[in-house]
Amino acid sequence: MTYPLRDRCAIAGIGATEFSKKSGRSVLALGVEASLAAIADAGMTVDDIDGIVRCDLDSLQHNDLAHALGLPELNYWGAAGVGGGAPCGMVAQAAAAVLSGQAKSVLVFRALNGRSGQRYGHGAAVSAAVGGNGSYDEYFLPHGLLSPGQMYGLVAQRHMAEFGTTSEDFAHIAIACRDRANANPNAQMHDKTLTMDDYMAGRMISDPLRVFDFCQETDGACAVVVTTAERAKDGPNPAATIRAAVQSGMPDMQGGMLFPALMRPTLTTQPSASAAAKLYERAGLGPSDIDVAQIYDCFTITVLLQLEDYGFCAKGEGGSFASSGALQLDGSLPINTAGGNLSEGYIHGLNHVVEGVRQIRGTSTSQVPDAEVCLVTSGIPVSTSAMILTKA
Amino acid sequence: MTYPLRDRCAIAGIGATEFSKKSGRSVLALGVEASLAAIADAGMTVDDIDGIVRCDLDSLQHNDLAHALGLPELNYWGAAGVGGGAPCGMVAQAAAAVLSGQAKSVLVFRALNGRSGQRYGHGAAVSAAVGGNGSYDEYFLPHGLLSPGQMYGLVAQRHMAEFGTTSEDFAHIAIACRDRANANPNAQMHDKTLTMDDYMAGRMISDPLRVFDFCQETDGACAVVVTTAERAKDGPNPAATIRAAVQSGMPDMQGGMLFPALMRPTLTTQPSASAAAKLYERAGLGPSDIDVAQIYDCFTITVLLQLEDYGFCAKGEGGSFASSGALQLDGSLPINTAGGNLSEGYIHGLNHVVEGVRQIRGTSTSQVPDAEVCLVTSGIPVSTSAMILTKA
Repeated sequence: MTYPLRDRCAIAGIGATEFSKKSGRSVLALGVEASLAAIADAGMTVDDIDGIVRCDLDSLQHNDLAHALGLPELNYWGAAGVGGGAPCGMVAQAAAAVLSGQAKSVLVFRALNGRSGQRYGHGAAVSAAVGGNGSYDEYFLPHGLLSPGQMYGLVAQRHMAEFGTTSEDFAHIAIACRDRANANPNAQMHDKTLTMDDYMAGRMISDPLRVFDFCQETDGACAVVVTTAERAKDGPNPAATIRAAVQSGMPDMQGGMLFPALMRPTLTTQPSASAAAKLYERAGLGPSDIDVAQIYDCFTITVLLQLEDYGFCAKGEGGSFASSGALQLDGSLPINTAGGNLSEGYIHGLNHVVEGVRQIRGTSTSQVPDAEVCLVTSGIPVSTSAMILTKA
Repeated sequence: MTYPLRDRCAIAGIGATEFSKKSGRSVLALGVEASLAAIADAGMTVDDIDGIVRCDLDSLQHNDLAHALGLPELNYWGAAGVGGGAPCGMVAQAAAAVLSGQAKSVLVFRALNGRSGQRYGHGAAVSAAVGGNGSYDEYFLPHGLLSPGQMYGLVAQRHMAEFGTTSEDFAHIAIACRDRANANPNAQMHDKTLTMDDYMAGRMISDPLRVFDFCQETDGACAVVVTTAERAKDGPNPAATIRAAVQSGMPDMQGGMLFPALMRPTLTTQPSASAAAKLYERAGLGPSDIDVAQIYDCFTITVLLQLEDYGFCAKGEGGSFASSGALQLDGSLPINTAGGNLSEGYIHGLNHVVEGVRQIRGTSTSQVPDAEVCLVTSGIPVSTSAMILTKA
């Protein structure tokens, strides 16, 4: 199979703000700060940037960011969704824009006041979406299913019933992420350790998911600069080559938001399964080639499902794989080396892309020695995306 | 200059619903109908489609359309905006997805109940956007500037003051579009003729813009299928090759919506000027090569500005150019040959793309003999897009 995008584009620059519960400034200010950091990190100036890709849920529009940054011209803009499923798809869209000549260098950003502003984790008894935009909320809200945590609680229950997965298995995922966050001064949970006892003592929020199975709520922003692999070599920092990228939706994944993930024939196989197959085919690589992975973790259960769907273990064995120690820094598949959404912060998964680049550069605070191939995945419900980054 | 996209992709299929004031069915039903028509027109089935690009303002999400169509897999989705500025950018994004190997064949659609559902032309005294998402409405609403028609009324006034443009000039644009609609059985204004006397007797809505300077409000949908130029040759109908496409935003075009167009240094030069320069450069063509043009016409004044910005006449001479008869079917630049937004219907400009393909195929109800090069433009405020279609 010929895959035109393979190794043709790269992430040349990365940037992020601090991650906090109260940024004290606007989403625009956060987006500008992360963007300027990514542009400088790429060895570029705003004059080099002529494209912007945003997340569909971002309140910041492309033209406002372009204006605030002072871009001289804007030759490409676009958006991808849904929410946390977007980041790798956003990078892929930026790469396609570059490869097609629509733009030279494209900024991909995500900015949100996810704790002090609009919070994603909360449910609403009355949704503006009901009966309207195809969110299918009308099938779920009357039954009290209001929030993502409730939906993933049911998925986790199903995995336990079907495969004998235990709370300890989920705990090992949360603890691996927390351990990495403890080494990362910029992680929200940098100063808070997490033991198995701590985990088990955690408040039960949506059975079987405890408080430590839930990701952070974060104010902050991340940005990356995507350009040609050739141009990326000119930068002061090593570039991360985009080996392959994929978006994947499955035909039974209708609905704009989360709950349709419950309408699937099997709850324990999500679009990450189809994404993985296509990603590996495009990359000419397989799970055994992956040195380190940044796996989207809005909840621990989403990591567990993806460990299976991306082929690191068989379906149903995600729990025992997690409990084997494989996810720790000295394990066979170190994950979420900045702490992930669970413990670094929730920039809707674009922070996973930033950390993926750090691993390829060798600059992570939990560096995997000689990491040359990094898998990055985005949120799995409804429709997902993923990519593989490699050394130039 | 090397422009990788040139002639590499094509529009293989086109589809549309009827255009009405009351469709009597959902936006989803409209989107599905237009999409199935476009897929069949391309000689494809839903199994051939694995990508979807939507307009940011569409209420229909990619995964709902994919589900309703029964696509077996979805390997690309994305969105472009802002509103009417999107269509050519949506096609360009689809072409980039195809060229990069992210998807094989991509559906681009716009579906709306623009008359019986949410209406775009109305202003609201209290906007949810104020103080929020960077729409800058707070600078305009207190002064009574509520609707797009008011904004373009000011732009038209400025053009009259600066260049001596007259109401007769605007009338010639409205009449050219109406004449084409009279020949198009599917146009909303098919049965209603428009004379200069009719125009002058039209109700003044936003001085100098009369009712006939305003586009339609329409329930309906359009869709096109974008694939490789090679694959497009397999279809039963002639494909329209995408010679070049462009999105263009200018650095002073901040704000999510319309009114920032009033914050520009000159009201009479909009982003269409920068779009034109880049489009011609990428295409290796100039205004004299254009056989026929589909020019975004939410109001007559937007056509007039683009006649100048796309180089069909000098800046300030759009009025006299329009009044010269150039825009009629036997003129030097026949425009909006299905009737345009002014008289065919307002599918937010995706209907211009569909008609552009018809001209290249030779199947328009107002066919320009031997048309080989068609310019299509999208809405000009905030940020715009455009493309040039050619015979394969």
